[in-house]
Amino acid sequence: MKISKEIEFIIAVDALKNVNRRNYNADDSRRENTAEHSWQIIILAQILYPYAKNKENVDLLRVIRMLSIHDLVEIEAGDTFLFDEVGMIGKFEREKKSAQNIFGKLNEPLRSDFYNLWLEFEEESTPDAIFACAIDRIMPFILNSKTSGKSWTEAGVTEKQIRNMLENAITRASDEMGEAFRLLLDENIFNGKVAP
Amino acid sequence: MKISKEIEFIIAVDALKNVNRRNYNADDSRRENTAEHSWQIIILAQILYPYAKNKENVDLLRVIRMLSIHDLVEIEAGDTFLFDEVGMIGKFEREKKSAQNIFGKLNEPLRSDFYNLWLEFEEESTPDAIFACAIDRIMPFILNSKTSGKSWTEAGVTEKQIRNMLENAITRASDEMGEAFRLLLDENIFNGKVAP
Repeated sequence: MKISKEIEFIIAVDALKNVNRRNYNADDSRRENTAEHSWQIIILAQILYPYAKNKENVDLLRVIRMLSIHDLVEIEAGDTFLFDEVGMIGKFEREKKSAQNIFGKLNEPLRSDFYNLWLEFEEESTPDAIFACAIDRIMPFILNSKTSGKSWTEAGVTEKQIRNMLENAITRASDEMGEAFRLLLDENIFNGKVAP
Repeated sequence: MKISKEIEFIIAVDALKNVNRRNYNADDSRRENTAEHSWQIIILAQILYPYAKNKENVDLLRVIRMLSIHDLVEIEAGDTFLFDEVGMIGKFEREKKSAQNIFGKLNEPLRSDFYNLWLEFEEESTPDAIFACAIDRIMPFILNSKTSGKSWTEAGVTEKQIRNMLENAITRASDEMGEAFRLLLDENIFNGKVAP
């Protein structure tokens, strides 16, 4: 069968549906998983693309492709909560190994293509990666802002932590996303969902 | 806030994570939901794109965008099992109303853009829609083929039903996908997962 490697790969990545993230779905019924999150940021990228800074330099296809595969490393490495400072230690090395394993199931050129997209996302330096990264960071921020913010209050996340991890990543990608970040953060500090 | 409509929309579509489909995840632990399925077909489109017939006429960005939003109508209309002949009656009209409601939450031009992508997918006549549709149909077929096939055996799905709904949709999009369909179907009939 000519597409047998591709079929093995798509079955292997099914495991991403079992990787739970910290934050909750909008209805607070349960934690979301990484497959769901990956889909949601692909929608978000499309609706916020008109607001990307220098969007003539941002390639929406590459952004979406990055977003779709950047979390596949979590199948082996697990999800690391953005505000878990201990968990963040060694994250890149763990995920790099996982990237080699998961993308290694594919033939070339797709193997290198996916691996390089993953690496580009992690390095956050190209226009595509900067926009993709901002989308990935603002999504759980929006979810927490518009719901009870349970994953923030559970972990006692502070304004400083949020600013450190999100503010620059979001504002460098889009003025309008930056505005939303500031307004929603103020509101959430005022509401007591974020510790001052 | 300049992106307030976009934020409302992304929160509204979160409900897709609660729409369960008939078939099961690869580990048979539970039924998959439509958000997870939407993500998985975006991966599948990328890895099978090299096998698309006349792929110079297939625009991968448009295919992925279609796949990402085509099931948003299920938030209101629910998922209809492909082999549920009664459920399929009136499906298009129900989903059309749902498409108008969900995409109506966005400003132009995105509202019409998404609506037209949804409609193009449903009509299955452009090269992009034909490839996207084949990807959407072959994904649950692969999942059932490579697992216990519980959603097929639960519903007593027959070879004829599968051929009617999938064979032409898949083979017209790709020779290699057509080959996989035939080989896996034979195997599944032999294994007794599909009723002859």
